Amino acid sequence: MSTAGITGPAGFSAGATTAGIKPSGTPDMALVVNNGPCFDAAAVFTRNRVVASPVKLSRKALSDGQLAAVIFNSGNANACNGAQGDKDASALVAEVAHSLHLPEGDIAACSTGIIGEPMPMHKVLAGAADVVKGLGTSAEHAHAAAAAIMTTDTVTKEATYAADGWSVGAMGKGVGMMAPSLATMLVCLTTDAAASAPALHSALDKAVAKTFNTLDVDGSTSTNDTVILMASGASGIAPSQEKLDAAVLAVCADIADQLQADAEGVTKRVKITVEGTATDNQALNAARTLGRDNLFKCAMFGSDPNWGRVLAAVGMADAEMEPDNISVYFNDQPVCRASTGTPGAREVDLSSADIDVRVDLGTGGAGSAFVRTTDLSHAYVEINSAYSS
Amino acid sequence: MSTAGITGPAGFSAGATTAGIKPSGTPDMALVVNNGPCFDAAAVFTRNRVVASPVKLSRKALSDGQLAAVIFNSGNANACNGAQGDKDASALVAEVAHSLHLPEGDIAACSTGIIGEPMPMHKVLAGAADVVKGLGTSAEHAHAAAAAIMTTDTVTKEATYAADGWSVGAMGKGVGMMAPSLATMLVCLTTDAAASAPALHSALDKAVAKTFNTLDVDGSTSTNDTVILMASGASGIAPSQEKLDAAVLAVCADIADQLQADAEGVTKRVKITVEGTATDNQALNAARTLGRDNLFKCAMFGSDPNWGRVLAAVGMADAEMEPDNISVYFNDQPVCRASTGTPGAREVDLSSADIDVRVDLGTGGAGSAFVRTTDLSHAYVEINSAYSS
Repeated sequence: MSTAGITGPAGFSAGATTAGIKPSGTPDMALVVNNGPCFDAAAVFTRNRVVASPVKLSRKALSDGQLAAVIFNSGNANACNGAQGDKDASALVAEVAHSLHLPEGDIAACSTGIIGEPMPMHKVLAGAADVVKGLGTSAEHAHAAAAAIMTTDTVTKEATYAADGWSVGAMGKGVGMMAPSLATMLVCLTTDAAASAPALHSALDKAVAKTFNTLDVDGSTSTNDTVILMASGASGIAPSQEKLDAAVLAVCADIADQLQADAEGVTKRVKITVEGTATDNQALNAARTLGRDNLFKCAMFGSDPNWGRVLAAVGMADAEMEPDNISVYFNDQPVCRASTGTPGAREVDLSSADIDVRVDLGTGGAGSAFVRTTDLSHAYVEINSAYSS
Repeated sequence: MSTAGITGPAGFSAGATTAGIKPSGTPDMALVVNNGPCFDAAAVFTRNRVVASPVKLSRKALSDGQLAAVIFNSGNANACNGAQGDKDASALVAEVAHSLHLPEGDIAACSTGIIGEPMPMHKVLAGAADVVKGLGTSAEHAHAAAAAIMTTDTVTKEATYAADGWSVGAMGKGVGMMAPSLATMLVCLTTDAAASAPALHSALDKAVAKTFNTLDVDGSTSTNDTVILMASGASGIAPSQEKLDAAVLAVCADIADQLQADAEGVTKRVKITVEGTATDNQALNAARTLGRDNLFKCAMFGSDPNWGRVLAAVGMADAEMEPDNISVYFNDQPVCRASTGTPGAREVDLSSADIDVRVDLGTGGAGSAFVRTTDLSHAYVEINSAYSS
C-alpha cells in the first residue's frame, strides 16, 4: 500500500500548523476538509464512560451522519476539564466554522495529549485561524497533517487503498493507552466513494472490530479514542457494500499494524489466537484476558516459553473451557497438550520480534478470535512512570 | 499479635524437612497435623478453572468437612501435569496417611512452585516419610513449617490471635501471582476452638472476602491458591459465630498484610477505596479495575499524582457512575472534583511507601469497597521476565 494518506481520495484537502500547544514546538494542529459533493460520515468513539470534551462535541456533530471537516490538536486532550473543556471545544470548532464558512454542526474535533490541563485557547484559536490558510490536496499536505497529530509516536501512520476508480485514505496516531495521559488513538479515514452514512457506519464498525478492537496493548482505553470516516462522493462511484467493507478494512488493518509496531516500550509483537470455544465472543474474552496478563507479557519480554502462565491466565477468562484439555502453541510448535507440557516445550525459541500464540480451550466448539498485544518491558515501566512528574 | 503460628492453638503439631525438590536446597516440605479431639475443617480454593492436582485432591478431602492433616511442598506446583499429577498427589497423601495411620481421605495437600514439571516423586515420598518423624508442637516447629512453604517469599508469614481460652494460628506464603509460575498463595489456619465445619466455613468465607480477596497485585489468580482452616476443639470451648468470625478475620488480615508487604518487586503499597456507587459490588469492580491498570500502577511507582489515569481507568469499570461528577483523593488530598483537576493536584506528595487512593464515582449511592495493590516497577518486570528461562 502506498502512503498518499487522507488527500489520496478526491475531494479532500488537509493542512497543519504549529500552534505552540506542545512544549516541543513541533506541529500540533491539523485540519481535514471534505470539499464534497457529498458529506456522509460515520465514526466510532471510545467506550470509556469518562469522555473528553471533543468526543462529546463530535458525537453530536456526527449524529446526523454529515460532516464537512475535522479539526485536530495534539499536546492537550481537553479531557477532565469540566464545563470549561466543553466551551473550549465549541470555541475551537466555531473558529474553524467561521474561517471555512461552514455550519458549526458539520465539524468534528479530535484532541490528544495530557488529561486535565486547560486548553491554551489563545494559542489554539490562533492555530485554528492559521491552519485554514495552508490547506491543500498534495501528499505533502496529508503527511503534514499526519505528523501534527503525533504525540509520543515516533513515525507518522498513513495508508491508502486504491479501488476501481475510487480510493480510501487514512492517517492515525497512538495506540491503546501506551502513552500515559496522552489520550490516545485517533484515526481519520477519507474516501471519494459515494456512500450513505449507514453504509459507512456498517463498513467502519466491521473494520474496527477486526482491527483496532483487536489491538490490546495494556487493556487501557482512553478518554479520547476516535475513528472517523468521511465520504466525499467525488469519484462519482457508489461501490457495493462488500467492496466498501473490503477497502475500509484494508486501510484500518494497515493503520493498526503501524500502531502496534510503534507502541511505546515494545520489544515483541504478540498475536494471540484462541479457538475451541462455543462462540467467537468467548474466544475473544479469553484472548483479551491472556493479552492483559502481566505475567504472560513479562514472559514474552523475556522470550520465555512459559506455557504454564498461559493456562493460569486463560483459566480465569469468562469463557467455557475443558480445563484438562487445553492446548497451547508457540510459533506453531505445540508446548502444551491436554493441559500438560510437551517434551521440549521449554526449549521453544521465542527470540524473534513477532511471537504467535495459539490456545485451544478444548471444548470442540468452532468459536475463535484473536487479539494483538505487546510484551511488558522495562521501557514500558520507564516511559509510564516518568511521564508527568 | 505474636507469631506463635500454627502450633499456638492446642491440638496441633507441625514439622518440616528438606526433600530436595527446590534446587536451592532449602526446606521444601511441611506437615500440619490436627491431633483432635475434633477434626472439623473448611477451605477456600482458587477460582481458576485450571486447577492443580493437589487442589482437586484437597477439594475431595474437604467435602465431608473433616480433615486430620495437610501435607505441603514448595518447589513444584504439581499443576498441568495431567493424570500423572493426580496420581502423584494421591501417592504423596497415601504415604503420609500410612505413616500417620490415618485414612487417606482425611489428608489435604498443598503444592507451590513451578507449573508443568512432573513431581520428583522419589524425593517427595522420601520427604513425606521423613517429615512425619520430626513433628512437634513448639513455636520452632511452626516456624520451620512456615519457612518450608516459602518460594520467592523473603520472610516467613505467621500470625496468632488469642481469644478467651482458645486461639487461632496461621502461616502463609506468596501473594497473587507475583511469583511467575510459582503457584501461589497458600494459607493454613488452626484453632483449638470447637466449631462445626459450616461454622468454620462461614467464618473463613467472610474473612477471605475482606482480606485475601482484597489483595490484587497483578490481577492474576494461581492454579493452586488454597486457604485451609482446621479446628481441633482441644480448648473445649465453643465460641459464638461472632467471636469465631472476629478471630479468623484478625488472623487472615495479619497474614494478608504480610503478603502485601513481601510481594515481589514492590516499592509502593497502594490501598484503593471506591465509594459513591449503588452497590458494594460495583465499587469493588471499579477498585479492581483501577488496581489492575498498568498505567496507574506505573504512576504509583513514579510517585506521580496522575489523577487523569484514575479517571481513564475507572471509566472502563463495570460500575454505574456519574462521568462528570467523579472525585479523586490521593492521601486524603482532593486532586479531582467533579471530574476536573483541583489547583495544586499535580504537586501532591506521593513519595511515601504507602499510598491511599480514594475515588467517589458520584452517584450518591452508599456502595463502597477497597482493594490493596502494589505499584508496577522495574523489579516486577525483571523478576517476571527472567524467571524460568
